[in-house]
Order: sequence, then structure tokens, then C-alpha cells
Amino acid sequence: MPASNEDDLIARYFRPLATSAGSFELRDDAAILGEAPGDIVVTTDAIVEGVHFFPSDPPETIARKALRVNLSDLAAKGAAPAGFVLTLALPQPDASWLESFAGALGQDAALFQCPLLGGDTVSTPGPRMISITAFGRVKVGRMVRRLGAQAGDVVAVTGTIGDAVIGLDLLKGGPSRPALSANRAFSDQMVGRYRVPQPRIALASAIADCAHAAMDVSDGLAGDLAKLCSVSGVSARIDLAKVPLSEPARTVLAAGAITLEALVGGGDDYEVVCTVPATRWPALAAAGTAAGVAVTAIGEIVAGSSPPVFLDASGRPVTLTRTSYSHF
Amino acid sequence: MPASNEDDLIARYFRPLATSAGSFELRDDAAILGEAPGDIVVTTDAIVEGVHFFPSDPPETIARKALRVNLSDLAAKGAAPAGFVLTLALPQPDASWLESFAGALGQDAALFQCPLLGGDTVSTPGPRMISITAFGRVKVGRMVRRLGAQAGDVVAVTGTIGDAVIGLDLLKGGPSRPALSANRAFSDQMVGRYRVPQPRIALASAIADCAHAAMDVSDGLAGDLAKLCSVSGVSARIDLAKVPLSEPARTVLAAGAITLEALVGGGDDYEVVCTVPATRWPALAAAGTAAGVAVTAIGEIVAGSSPPVFLDASGRPVTLTRTSYSHF
Repeated sequence: MPASNEDDLIARYFRPLATSAGSFELRDDAAILGEAPGDIVVTTDAIVEGVHFFPSDPPETIARKALRVNLSDLAAKGAAPAGFVLTLALPQPDASWLESFAGALGQDAALFQCPLLGGDTVSTPGPRMISITAFGRVKVGRMVRRLGAQAGDVVAVTGTIGDAVIGLDLLKGGPSRPALSANRAFSDQMVGRYRVPQPRIALASAIADCAHAAMDVSDGLAGDLAKLCSVSGVSARIDLAKVPLSEPARTVLAAGAITLEALVGGGDDYEVVCTVPATRWPALAAAGTAAGVAVTAIGEIVAGSSPPVFLDASGRPVTLTRTSYSHF
Repeated sequence: MPASNEDDLIARYFRPLATSAGSFELRDDAAILGEAPGDIVVTTDAIVEGVHFFPSDPPETIARKALRVNLSDLAAKGAAPAGFVLTLALPQPDASWLESFAGALGQDAALFQCPLLGGDTVSTPGPRMISITAFGRVKVGRMVRRLGAQAGDVVAVTGTIGDAVIGLDLLKGGPSRPALSANRAFSDQMVGRYRVPQPRIALASAIADCAHAAMDVSDGLAGDLAKLCSVSGVSARIDLAKVPLSEPARTVLAAGAITLEALVGGGDDYEVVCTVPATRWPALAAAGTAAGVAVTAIGEIVAGSSPPVFLDASGRPVTLTRTSYSHF
């Protein structure tokens, strides 16, 4: 009896990614996360064609984004990647698309030591959709939560903020395009930041060691920090001038093509925002230096229940009207 | 700052389902499966509107099917449910649909002791899609695999086979409809079997104790058993007359409205097929009796590499042309 096309598809494109013993080479109905010391951190994030990525985006970047948005959560939680399962909904199997998608997914799985454990492949009359559930390991009780920020903590972010907003604006032909038209490298860099997040896995153990609270910035720095503060029962004062911006972002900002408010309120950064006691801040900063990832102090946690206050260069509070992205 | 609509939606409909400490009341980016003895079994299955369910299906049955197709895998693997994460892709949030969906999902989560741990809610321009990743626990190295069937094993199935094929046929207005038109209870029973699988969680520990190999029957008994035999490097001889059929199914079959081949080659049974050494068969049968779930011996595993042979009442092999469902 010949294998079904679905089985062929899985065997051809995804079996090479199933490098963990617990995946049983994708020849079973389920996978195993083996007994090991510590808790397992579970996170799930889906991306939908036309919502989180463009139909014309390269399959390689779609694959990387699908995995990396989950790895970004693991990094923020201080977890070491342990594997993932993939649900892939496709209108029809397109061999060349699948080959590129699976190839890039496999490269990222190897790069971040996060092997494919299993999955489900289904047909859909709608857009492509990729849902990934990823697993990480932490010491018992040591997942870094949103809850836990304390007054006096340094608020820090990894990398740079707002690049993905500009990348998306470029792809949509928005005002960033003329602002960067003279610099192709800058444009490519911003589009790359939108399409391919850089999960801060290299900092996961330092975040676990140093941070009181953390989350990944996926829906906008202002709104995400507000969520963290709300759950922790604290507020924050942030110096907008300290929010780390890339050189392309500064160029777009200087041209008046986008506002700083849009950069701190837009989504898809996939950086980590964390709060760190002052005594641990040097250790986190040093870990950033060692990993080659900028970690920037942008303000501090203060007592109170109001949303974080963003201050301009002269110390005046700035009113942010749009602080985060919501699907509905 | 008001919570976003997406946060409101999660808080209103799904927070009540997050009864496990590891879910952090859905107020974090990730959940925890806490350290405990044993392996964690991971399975993922998605259902798509227009493919796995009808747009007009009640939200309650859609919710139950989405969770139960995953619980069915856990049962077949001998695992006790530990929790699940949910990805929900919706064209727009419909309060009454969501309330019904989440209510039924919560009832099933409680019924099967499988709490919601986390999830992701995304908008989609396409059909509704629900992807669930479920977790179960087994003793170390004791997940029941497809691999492991041995010549001489009894081949057994739980429940009855083919009901969901008839239920689907009824919903599509196929030939089963006139065959059951005189018996509304039979029709409802078959539609119920299509819409709401009965995961055999009650037998999970007996399957773990007794079976050499097992899988859930989701794509058709004939094809699924063939997959199990292929991975195990064995063949099987099945008495078609012993395949357990419900009374409605026998009625449809007697009316000539459907073939036995269609019943053993169709999908959506969500029963367990397992192979059990003869010495353990009485224990499994007794567990079925205790749980109120029929467990029926339908044949035996034999040496060889050919696909399972299905024998008719006179012992002649029957050729099955369509043995299982494939998405592509």
C-alpha cells in the first residue's frame, strides 16, 4: 500500500528536521519530552498569511519567523529551547515552497538547538497558517514571569526598538520608503527585521539569573511594558531618549517619516523587556556584551498603578495614543 | 490604559478554563508543565472549518472535537492528560460563538482533567481554525508506540468503527440519509459520532499496561493499521465480520447505502487500535468492561511485510481500494 501524499510530504520535507529521539522520526502519533530535572516552559504563537506575513514573503523568512516568535518567548522566560511542534495549514502542497520552508526551518532548529518533535499538516481553503508550540527548560520555579517587577528595578530592553514597524511600512510603500530610498542597505535591514526576528536565546540564562520580570516585546514596547507593570502591580518611568534605535530608524525619524510614538507602540520587535534589580544590572549588561547583543537601560520601575510614563528629552510626559497591536 | 480587545477576549472567555497553576491565569507569555516523574507525551492536531467541520456546526461540538482529537492520541499512547494549549484563528470575534465554544471547551477540559495552559488568538481572513497541542504523562520510556507489534498479538479496537463516516454522509445528504430516515435517534447518534469523538482516556492506563503497540484511528482503520504494521515490521489478518459496528451502522450497511469497505477505510473514528500479547488480552478486555467501553478482538498480527489482509466471512481476502484519508 503506498504511503498517502500527506505521509510523503512529512517524510520528504520534515523528517530531516526530527533529530531528537523523542520525535520517533515523525513515525508516531505523538512525541516525547523526556524526563529531566526542571520545569518545562510552553509557549505557542501562530502566524497567518495576510496578517503576520505577506503572501509574497519568501518561504524561508516565513519559516524563520514562525519559529523565532516562539523562541523569543522562551528567551524572555529564561528558558533553554528543548523542541517544538508544528501545525501547517496549506491550501495545496507546493513542492518548491515546502522545500524552501522546511529547509530554513531546519536551519533555525539547528541554530537554536530546538528540534522538531512532531506536528500536523492540514489542508485549508484559506490562507497559509503556521502554528508552533515550543518548549524550553528552566530550573524548577525559575521561569521569569511578567509578575515580579519591583520598584527600583532597572527597565532594560535588548537590541533596538521599532525596526520592524519601519520594515512593515517599507513593504506597504509607506512614508519610510522615500526616507530610506537613498540607502538600500538600510531598507533591507529594516525589512529583514520585520521578516526575521532575532530571538535573544543567547541571553536566556542571564535573564533567568538577573531579571525580576520579563516578556518579549511583540505588540509594542509601550503596551507590553504596561502589561508587565499591571501584572506586577507597579508603574515605570521611561526616558524616550534612551530607547535604543537603529541607525536606519534614526534616519527615518529624522526625516519626519515616522514618529517615535509609532516606534514604541508598534509590534513585531521580538526583543526582550525586563526589569532587573540594580545589583544585577551589571551582570546582565556584561552578558549582553559577551553575547554581542545590546542591552540598554531605558528607565526604572516605580511604585504605583498607573501605566508607564514615557518622558521626552526635557522630562515631560508624552501621551501615547496607540500603545500596542491587537488582533481584534 | 484599557486592555486591548484581544486581552479582553482571553480574559472573558478563556481565563475560567486556566485552572492549572502552571497557566498563570493566562497572564503571562508562557505556561509551565511542572517537574514530575515520567515522560511528557506531546501531540498536536488542528481542525479547519470546511475541512474537519462544517461552518454550521455548533460551536460546542467544534470545541469538543478540537480537544478530543488530541485526547484520543493521548489515550492511544497510554498517557494521562496533563493540559493543552490552544491556537484559535478567527475571522472576527463573535461573542455568542466564543461563549459557546469556550464553555464547551471548559466542560471537556474538566471532564478529562486536561486544563487549558495557554494559547494564542489571531485574526484570519480565512476560515476558523483551531490548533491544539495536548500533553500527557507516562512512566519513563512507556509511551505506547506504533512500533512494537509482534506476531501473535491480538489486534483489538475500542468502541465501534465507521459511525463518523455515516455521520458525515448524513450531513452531506448522502445515501445514508434515506437509509436512516425512519430513525431519528440513529441519525442523531451518527452525526454525534462525527462531531464529537469519544476519546478513550478511561482506557489509557490499561493500554499502557497491556499493549505492545497502539494508535488512534483517525484516518480509517485499514490505513491506520497498515501504518502501525509497517512501522512495526509485521502484517495482520483481520476478520471483517468481527469489526465492531453500531446498530445504526449495521442498518445503513443492510440497506446497501454504504459499503463495509467505506466504514473501515473512512476517517474520524477516534477509536484506539492496539496489539496485545495473548496473555494480556484478558486484562485489556476486563478494563474495557470496567470502563464501559467495548474492546473487540478483530484479528491477529502475523509475520510479514505485506499490508494487513482483511478477510470476509468465508475467509477470502477483500481488496480495499481506499484505506485512509489524506489531506493532499
